[in-house]
Amino acid sequence: MSKLTIVMFSGDLDKSMAAMIIANGAAASGWDVTIFYTMWGTPLLRDPNKKAPKPKDTMGRMFGMMLPNGPDNLKLSKMNMLGLGTSMMKGRMSAKNVKTIRGMMEDAKELGVKFLICDLTMNIMGLQKEEFSDIVDDFVGVGTYLDAAEKAEVNLFI
Amino acid sequence: MSKLTIVMFSGDLDKSMAAMIIANGAAASGWDVTIFYTMWGTPLLRDPNKKAPKPKDTMGRMFGMMLPNGPDNLKLSKMNMLGLGTSMMKGRMSAKNVKTIRGMMEDAKELGVKFLICDLTMNIMGLQKEEFSDIVDDFVGVGTYLDAAEKAEVNLFI
Amino acid sequence: MSKLTIVMFSGDLDKSMAAMIIANGAAASGWDVTIFYTMWGTPLLRDPNKKAPKPKDTMGRMFGMMLPNGPDNLKLSKMNMLGLGTSMMKGRMSAKNVKTIRGMMEDAKELGVKFLICDLTMNIMGLQKEEFSDIVDDFVGVGTYLDAAEKAEVNLFI
Repeated sequence: MSKLTIVMFSGDLDKSMAAMIIANGAAASGWDVTIFYTMWGTPLLRDPNKKAPKPKDTMGRMFGMMLPNGPDNLKLSKMNMLGLGTSMMKGRMSAKNVKTIRGMMEDAKELGVKFLICDLTMNIMGLQKEEFSDIVDDFVGVGTYLDAAEKAEVNLFI
Repeated sequence: MSKLTIVMFSGDLDKSMAAMIIANGAAASGWDVTIFYTMWGTPLLRDPNKKAPKPKDTMGRMFGMMLPNGPDNLKLSKMNMLGLGTSMMKGRMSAKNVKTIRGMMEDAKELGVKFLICDLTMNIMGLQKEEFSDIVDDFVGVGTYLDAAEKAEVNLFI
Repeated sequence: MSKLTIVMFSGDLDKSMAAMIIANGAAASGWDVTIFYTMWGTPLLRDPNKKAPKPKDTMGRMFGMMLPNGPDNLKLSKMNMLGLGTSMMKGRMSAKNVKTIRGMMEDAKELGVKFLICDLTMNIMGLQKEEFSDIVDDFVGVGTYLDAAEKAEVNLFI
């Protein structure tokens, strides 16, 4: 069984779409797929319906407010044009029957894609485990990513 | 024979240059090289002298106008500075005998680099096969990319 | 011994941090790690206390002034917010005992990470060997990078 890992560093709509299409394409062909969400990618897996149980410090609250809350309000990395480009792209994805990022993540989960969150990013951004989507498999350090990457045929940084 | 694949996601001058230098360096040493153009990378292979034969819908026309038309008018991803940085970089590349992106693509073709276009991106952006440069080898899905990447020693996402 | 290579194309604070954390995590586990600094990544290894010995032409002087001078004044690729986001991130890294990029580079050197500079970028940007930090192992072309990547289990473009 071939293996794919992705370091999901970016939190942009277009890069998320590319990552999920590659991940789901591989998983649908029987590959073992691991995505390691770090830095701007981490907030993609926040669940907007969950709240942090422990009080946050000032910086943690600021990061919490400024970072995206899940995959539903992402922007394009290029041609966002105050939101117009992003709206165009979302409309177009819908018209062409391309799923939303949320829909692609749900498919990925069903296909067995493993979702890992970088614990160092959580620490820096003041994010708590309880804020994340149930889709998340584990909260891990870079060593866990490297173990997976070492055995994989394909490793991408997106 | 070693193998290299590149997912060419970006359409920026600097990232295109990096990709082509790595691709041509590998191909010149006898590597088997495949570049899969997706998202913003796809328009790099449009041919400004060709026209779409079928009428486009409104969104398709808008994407067609806003996207780059081939590799001759790209911008830097950083320090574009309203075009000044890009002009500086182009002037410098020329002064140092670094070829243009178009020139590097032609070299790549002669060295046997394979140019693949992501058919999902074409669908979303409303691009038609007849708009693309003769340099393109094929219009394919992510599965074709994964088949190549699985067998390659080096896989990059740019 | 497993091997990791990174093409360090970006010069951003956040991407540098990701690269150094992955590199040092691997090196601390005994991996052989090579980082090839190209394009915007190259100035990260300039030493602000060193000066170019040979006179530069106008373009070389302009690049020299506009490019970062070492790893101490980098910006975030996202949410820089006129420097506020970058300050927040730096403060947070410090509060959470995450080292600076400079500190992580010094750790990397001790762990045996190999620092290579892309000679083509030097040529385009008019940078001279004597301007770089003592941390640099060598000034090389893309062929040297490809030789390392060919043998490595994990190759990333950041």
